[in-house]
Amino acid sequence: MSGIKTNGQKRLVLVAGRSHPELAEAVAEALGSELVPTDARTFANGEIYARFDESVRGCDAFVIQSHTAPINEWLMEQLIMVDALKRASAKRITVVAPFYPYARQDKKGRGREPISARLVADLFKTAGANRIMSVDLHASQIQGFFDGPVDHLFAMPVLLEHFRASLDRSELTVVSPDMGRVRVADMWSDQLDAPLAIIHKRRDPLVANQVTVHEIVGNVNGRVCLLVDDMIDTGGTIVKAAQALKDNGATRVIVAATHAVFSDPASEILQSACVDEVVVTDTLPIPEHKRFDTLTILPIAPLLARAIHEVFEDGSVTSMFDGAA
Amino acid sequence: MSGIKTNGQKRLVLVAGRSHPELAEAVAEALGSELVPTDARTFANGEIYARFDESVRGCDAFVIQSHTAPINEWLMEQLIMVDALKRASAKRITVVAPFYPYARQDKKGRGREPISARLVADLFKTAGANRIMSVDLHASQIQGFFDGPVDHLFAMPVLLEHFRASLDRSELTVVSPDMGRVRVADMWSDQLDAPLAIIHKRRDPLVANQVTVHEIVGNVNGRVCLLVDDMIDTGGTIVKAAQALKDNGATRVIVAATHAVFSDPASEILQSACVDEVVVTDTLPIPEHKRFDTLTILPIAPLLARAIHEVFEDGSVTSMFDGAA
Amino acid sequence: MSGIKTNGQKRLVLVAGRSHPELAEAVAEALGSELVPTDARTFANGEIYARFDESVRGCDAFVIQSHTAPINEWLMEQLIMVDALKRASAKRITVVAPFYPYARQDKKGRGREPISARLVADLFKTAGANRIMSVDLHASQIQGFFDGPVDHLFAMPVLLEHFRASLDRSELTVVSPDMGRVRVADMWSDQLDAPLAIIHKRRDPLVANQVTVHEIVGNVNGRVCLLVDDMIDTGGTIVKAAQALKDNGATRVIVAATHAVFSDPASEILQSACVDEVVVTDTLPIPEHKRFDTLTILPIAPLLARAIHEVFEDGSVTSMFDGAA
Amino acid sequence: MSGIKTNGQKRLVLVAGRSHPELAEAVAEALGSELVPTDARTFANGEIYARFDESVRGCDAFVIQSHTAPINEWLMEQLIMVDALKRASAKRITVVAPFYPYARQDKKGRGREPISARLVADLFKTAGANRIMSVDLHASQIQGFFDGPVDHLFAMPVLLEHFRASLDRSELTVVSPDMGRVRVADMWSDQLDAPLAIIHKRRDPLVANQVTVHEIVGNVNGRVCLLVDDMIDTGGTIVKAAQALKDNGATRVIVAATHAVFSDPASEILQSACVDEVVVTDTLPIPEHKRFDTLTILPIAPLLARAIHEVFEDGSVTSMFDGAA
Amino acid sequence: MSGIKTNGQKRLVLVAGRSHPELAEAVAEALGSELVPTDARTFANGEIYARFDESVRGCDAFVIQSHTAPINEWLMEQLIMVDALKRASAKRITVVAPFYPYARQDKKGRGREPISARLVADLFKTAGANRIMSVDLHASQIQGFFDGPVDHLFAMPVLLEHFRASLDRSELTVVSPDMGRVRVADMWSDQLDAPLAIIHKRRDPLVANQVTVHEIVGNVNGRVCLLVDDMIDTGGTIVKAAQALKDNGATRVIVAATHAVFSDPASEILQSACVDEVVVTDTLPIPEHKRFDTLTILPIAPLLARAIHEVFEDGSVTSMFDGAA
Amino acid sequence: MSGIKTNGQKRLVLVAGRSHPELAEAVAEALGSELVPTDARTFANGEIYARFDESVRGCDAFVIQSHTAPINEWLMEQLIMVDALKRASAKRITVVAPFYPYARQDKKGRGREPISARLVADLFKTAGANRIMSVDLHASQIQGFFDGPVDHLFAMPVLLEHFRASLDRSELTVVSPDMGRVRVADMWSDQLDAPLAIIHKRRDPLVANQVTVHEIVGNVNGRVCLLVDDMIDTGGTIVKAAQALKDNGATRVIVAATHAVFSDPASEILQSACVDEVVVTDTLPIPEHKRFDTLTILPIAPLLARAIHEVFEDGSVTSMFDGAA
Repeated sequence: MSGIKTNGQKRLVLVAGRSHPELAEAVAEALGSELVPTDARTFANGEIYARFDESVRGCDAFVIQSHTAPINEWLMEQLIMVDALKRASAKRITVVAPFYPYARQDKKGRGREPISARLVADLFKTAGANRIMSVDLHASQIQGFFDGPVDHLFAMPVLLEHFRASLDRSELTVVSPDMGRVRVADMWSDQLDAPLAIIHKRRDPLVANQVTVHEIVGNVNGRVCLLVDDMIDTGGTIVKAAQALKDNGATRVIVAATHAVFSDPASEILQSACVDEVVVTDTLPIPEHKRFDTLTILPIAPLLARAIHEVFEDGSVTSMFDGAA
Repeated sequence: MSGIKTNGQKRLVLVAGRSHPELAEAVAEALGSELVPTDARTFANGEIYARFDESVRGCDAFVIQSHTAPINEWLMEQLIMVDALKRASAKRITVVAPFYPYARQDKKGRGREPISARLVADLFKTAGANRIMSVDLHASQIQGFFDGPVDHLFAMPVLLEHFRASLDRSELTVVSPDMGRVRVADMWSDQLDAPLAIIHKRRDPLVANQVTVHEIVGNVNGRVCLLVDDMIDTGGTIVKAAQALKDNGATRVIVAATHAVFSDPASEILQSACVDEVVVTDTLPIPEHKRFDTLTILPIAPLLARAIHEVFEDGSVTSMFDGAA
Repeated sequence: MSGIKTNGQKRLVLVAGRSHPELAEAVAEALGSELVPTDARTFANGEIYARFDESVRGCDAFVIQSHTAPINEWLMEQLIMVDALKRASAKRITVVAPFYPYARQDKKGRGREPISARLVADLFKTAGANRIMSVDLHASQIQGFFDGPVDHLFAMPVLLEHFRASLDRSELTVVSPDMGRVRVADMWSDQLDAPLAIIHKRRDPLVANQVTVHEIVGNVNGRVCLLVDDMIDTGGTIVKAAQALKDNGATRVIVAATHAVFSDPASEILQSACVDEVVVTDTLPIPEHKRFDTLTILPIAPLLARAIHEVFEDGSVTSMFDGAA
Repeated sequence: MSGIKTNGQKRLVLVAGRSHPELAEAVAEALGSELVPTDARTFANGEIYARFDESVRGCDAFVIQSHTAPINEWLMEQLIMVDALKRASAKRITVVAPFYPYARQDKKGRGREPISARLVADLFKTAGANRIMSVDLHASQIQGFFDGPVDHLFAMPVLLEHFRASLDRSELTVVSPDMGRVRVADMWSDQLDAPLAIIHKRRDPLVANQVTVHEIVGNVNGRVCLLVDDMIDTGGTIVKAAQALKDNGATRVIVAATHAVFSDPASEILQSACVDEVVVTDTLPIPEHKRFDTLTILPIAPLLARAIHEVFEDGSVTSMFDGAA
Repeated sequence: MSGIKTNGQKRLVLVAGRSHPELAEAVAEALGSELVPTDARTFANGEIYARFDESVRGCDAFVIQSHTAPINEWLMEQLIMVDALKRASAKRITVVAPFYPYARQDKKGRGREPISARLVADLFKTAGANRIMSVDLHASQIQGFFDGPVDHLFAMPVLLEHFRASLDRSELTVVSPDMGRVRVADMWSDQLDAPLAIIHKRRDPLVANQVTVHEIVGNVNGRVCLLVDDMIDTGGTIVKAAQALKDNGATRVIVAATHAVFSDPASEILQSACVDEVVVTDTLPIPEHKRFDTLTILPIAPLLARAIHEVFEDGSVTSMFDGAA
Repeated sequence: MSGIKTNGQKRLVLVAGRSHPELAEAVAEALGSELVPTDARTFANGEIYARFDESVRGCDAFVIQSHTAPINEWLMEQLIMVDALKRASAKRITVVAPFYPYARQDKKGRGREPISARLVADLFKTAGANRIMSVDLHASQIQGFFDGPVDHLFAMPVLLEHFRASLDRSELTVVSPDMGRVRVADMWSDQLDAPLAIIHKRRDPLVANQVTVHEIVGNVNGRVCLLVDDMIDTGGTIVKAAQALKDNGATRVIVAATHAVFSDPASEILQSACVDEVVVTDTLPIPEHKRFDTLTILPIAPLLARAIHEVFEDGSVTSMFDGAA
């Protein structure tokens, strides 16, 4: 038979956008590898350029980007990098987006709205992405927006490990900040074997014009309250919830969230007296000036690195969460 | 300039699968039209065949099918009809699926699961559907599964009109049967200006082995309770919720749902003493033997007909729900 | 150069729908492997669910399903399994459909008909199938309906081996039951070095109203007739052909077909006196109550197993049929 | 409501390749229109160029090409014209290919063959064709190769009209030149109410090495034989069939076919004594030097023009053949 | 025949991003229409949201956006608007991008670079755009990046009209600022019937280290030089060219360009003594602080409005430039 | 874990069209391999057929074709071969088109023109090509026409090596034959460290009716002129340029080009006195009767072979040109 035969070999490469270099480097280090040297630049008129300094032909490429503000810049940079990888003959391209961009625009709340979370999935596909990896999607249905495999990771094991060491569970109550997040809080309650409380925002029937009251379902008096959410954006919801908990007798309020979006004025108001501690991961970069004394930042890189390793080696990502989810 | 010019004209046609002929005919009647005469058959080995008896060339076709059991048969029949329309040069094809099939399989709850609701959207697209029309999707994100326009209709106005006439709002409380449905109940509460209660299923901390208790959030004692949900499948959840309400002092329990899936033993247990009335629409056919005295079936055809009319005439479907959603 | 290198490895996995477990297990056994443990279920309202119990990441998956009645259920189950494999990062997915569903709807006989055999090919593609494997397609053109490789296997070697052992060729005549099947009969005639006869159905010019006579082309008087066809559905055509052969002096009539669809009343009428023996393969399951004394069922699993092995190992499927086709 | 409204209008335009200008002009004339003036050229190195001299924006364009030799040139020219129409904002593009190119390569007869008829359908689609119109496809399954509407026209009414006027049916027998064409001959037999005969080519069992004999099924002695086929390529098959008919006592042999491919030596051998008359249509151009005394060429333009008219006006193409097919 | 018939009507709507409201409004005014009222916003974390306040169902939508800095924001906003239009059932969507974003990244200059101009075309397509309209593409080949119609407009008639009124052609020389732009300058030279000169940048053979000299081909001494280019970004190239012209005896230097990107320090250096006048169009917004005394801004809205009108009315865009290109 | 594991292996195969067998064989030889034995034929009516004589399942296939006249035949043959490879389960298919067909039709110069170079890229994709390899594309933007990797090779190193050995650089001037080719000439000038001259065709202002004069920019008097271009088609441009150089005092004129299209009358006029030597590569076949004494043909096979090797082995094609481009 004609032709030339050789043994197949596969090569993993890590490519990183410019949004959160510390995270990308930490992932590379955890994998015992290095990032592909890349020339990425923004021109005077805002156009982005990227080029890899070494061959990526035939490789299994993971493109890491943290979608922090300016979010559209980083999204476009990642799309451009995926395009460059595709044209440079990468064999398989996985978009690593620890915080999925536009995740909250996942449906048409009203007529003539976009579904931007689906649009983003299509943009990744069009640029050349074969797979997506993300952490704690705002809605699980977003997995279905992508026509291909999505590795959906959970930060809960990372956060839980922190709390298991530091908290006395006997005085702990897990709290959901609103009705939409109850399922997540329920899982926490299960894992920590702690009771659950829920905050229900409703219009005050006694006062006119959309004034809302925070009704608390469950007992929080004299309890250490662990408020859990997937993200903290401007912090308004979470701080009002914390205040309501304190008003109802909570002794301490600890906030746990995966994604620290921290748009203004989050950093400022999270330092108010009603919040005793805030624990987040570094899926998004948190600049020095947004950090504060009661903030704990847990590294997400080990989780990403392990998942990338499983994907590359055809192992199992599902098995990483067998205990937790 | 060469060529032949003529004025454009457009023609609406209604095509129906065999799952729920009463509904399709009611839609046609409401539109002042008729269904396209169709030869649809199932062969001895289960293969389905369909052919239209008159030309559909250039038309704006709406293919109505109710996805009741055997759901895969009706799904396949609809796909085959869409294929036949496409190959017969229909100009635009809208799948009318009042009850979206596989809507509850909208995410991967665990690794290696399908996302069948996305698969269904892709199958419709592949067969040739340009648009989808559906009523009360189990999750709004399903709109994002289809790469094209989805007209998402709400049955609430139909149901509300019924209750506005028949109920004394002063004694009414709207109840969500579980945590996942709170948002819908909230809209009902708003529209009826009635208080809200929520049923929370949780493991009983006092008893071992997954025994769940139904905790009720909000006051139901001495109230007429309106339990609202998008669908009733086997009826188990809803009946247990009704029982809990009665146990907590509710004077009456009325169940309102859009989709009457009514898998066994729904019809039987919904006749238990804890449920005083059940109100549904006929998005799905309800055979005689599944009907019972306390069941009210509201016609969905007027809503579908109006939406089809708006779509055909380039009017606004959004404006149909300006008051309600 | 950055990155991590490792040797490539590939893994074959067998996944099976629920339509014909004996066949799937026989294929697995012939390959010296096992089926992937799978949780497949049908819910109360007819929706199907499937989940694999072990990782299929990076694997070369073959999804075996026999499209017997209820054919749309099994088709949908297979599509759902393919979707689950795609989303679970299977590397390559081959649909194994020994009996291709809707194969007879391969063209528009009249205006406004579907071409369901093409639709089925597109549905497989959309769900995520990269390849199709099938046995004795009703029309070879169906290969062209799929945009990708189709491994078209032939059962003739399996059937021939049976007859070579059991029949005296000197008294044998191969018979085509109608004009559309002559090419297949011609190959049999070639392989067995036996003369060919053809049955031609035509309207009786002497009698009004669509009465057909079965004219026999070629000599069958005093011969053992081997009637060959790709499938037996209700059995009507084949039994009438057998009767005509006996009427014309055939001493024995043996029927050979690949696909035993056996819709009613096939099993019953194939036991009539004019048919002496029926030989089929088990591409489709044949329940006990449809089996009868003169029926011989040959196993198709060895052929499928060998083809799957060739596909997995990048061998040659074509070479499997070098003698026969 | 904002925006500008106007009444829709539609415009039919006819575009023609350079392969068969007489046919294109005849179609235009039958429609009472003109061809779009077009600059089509072949450059020195064989590359083709085409440009339309007037606007085709928003039009319903029909691109007529006859796929005669050099067939790849004309195929490429048509693809280029479709591309130019698409980029010039034509609203809908119909490829009119009276003789479908590569129709005989509609399946893989052996491993590692192409399915060029499917490839051609995909090339048309890729270039921008929305629809295909063709006459007497070699295999009806080719309709299923295109992902969109195919208007499959039949030349039989055109040919029948000719024979109805010129032949005495009482002495007529319809003959199929081989087994693969029996279905077509059957329809002719039906329409003309004449008996059917079939020619069966088989290896001569008495002589070695692939010598074939032409066996005649049915009575042709003393009959006027009408040999029907979809196309005449080199003419070998048809002339051998005619010879066999004459050898078996036929008084006259008339050949009827839709497509006059007439590759050498067709014109020459069709003038042999065994063929008394040849009747074809002009789906393909027949140059003067290939015409001969006993050849009758019937115009196909009226059929094409009527079908184009029905497509443009959203009428029914199916109804054109209600009597015949 | 069943169904409902009505006369077709079409409706043009104009949608605008937030980058350059003056231009969008000027286009609307020129068309005698208004922009669709739109709620477009940027959230705290940089995500963009857009919703149309009135129905766009069935309309022919034109989405106007000027891709000025921050260019990725405006690109993403336009993609989101296109997605919203698609999901709101707009019939046809045309992206109006007077300055095509990433136009200069139209090829791989080196290995492992992206081709961002192609990526942008694909992103538009994916979001749902059917057509693109742009002015003076940096390379004409970009038309070929989009799989659909591209209306490529030329600003030259707008600019020429200005110069025809203001300049004495007898003393005019058209100058190309570098080798890559000679073709454009050639057309200007043709239209103005003025001689052509070219500036050639080359390494100075007498001095080391990449110092370039500006060689002038053609006579500029004592001439009024019209330097023409498609865009002015930072202005460096154009100002150096102007200096070279003055050094070689030019009496006046006038710069004409379509796209005023005006990245810093363009505004500043264009006011240097070597540049006597700058004439641009307003395809991109020019904020007050970037304007200067010798700058003339010509309105592009009339050209866009006329082209949109031709597209909507199925007229001819090509004919708009019959004299000029 | 279930399934069968084995080590991956990969196999390179070379497939060749019939346009330029010498080149394909030279590539195979340089790689130490052989071409896949292939049965390729043209039928009487011009249809092409191709079949591979050995298995190509799972292989990395390179399909070599030289697009010489009749160019559409060879293009179609290559598409058919790609289709056959795809259907025969080749794992990856690379189209090797040393001279990209229709490269000069890369934009719409006027309205209603095709963009055939994009069309060709889409045809390759549709047939099943995953990658393209080509030499010296007429415009680099053509890379962006293909949705996938394009390996763009440069013949300059091959040509340079020849000239470095044979020419005295001190008397050499590199000349661009027209404005559109200056960038290429600039690279040559750089590599050979020789001055640059440019030929500018312009209308003669002194004579009416489109008479053009060849103006020479730069000094050519007494110089050995190296005229460089990407291709020589009919040779008209290049010979006129050579004549102009000689008229202006050039002592010798040498022509260097990658692609020897050599349409008539190229061979004849290139032998005129004004051209002293012509150096090309054999990307296209040059038949004996088109060769002449002053023609040197350099082999391109080593370059192609090395690039194919790098692609197969996941090496770097970019690094092959690090010195030159």
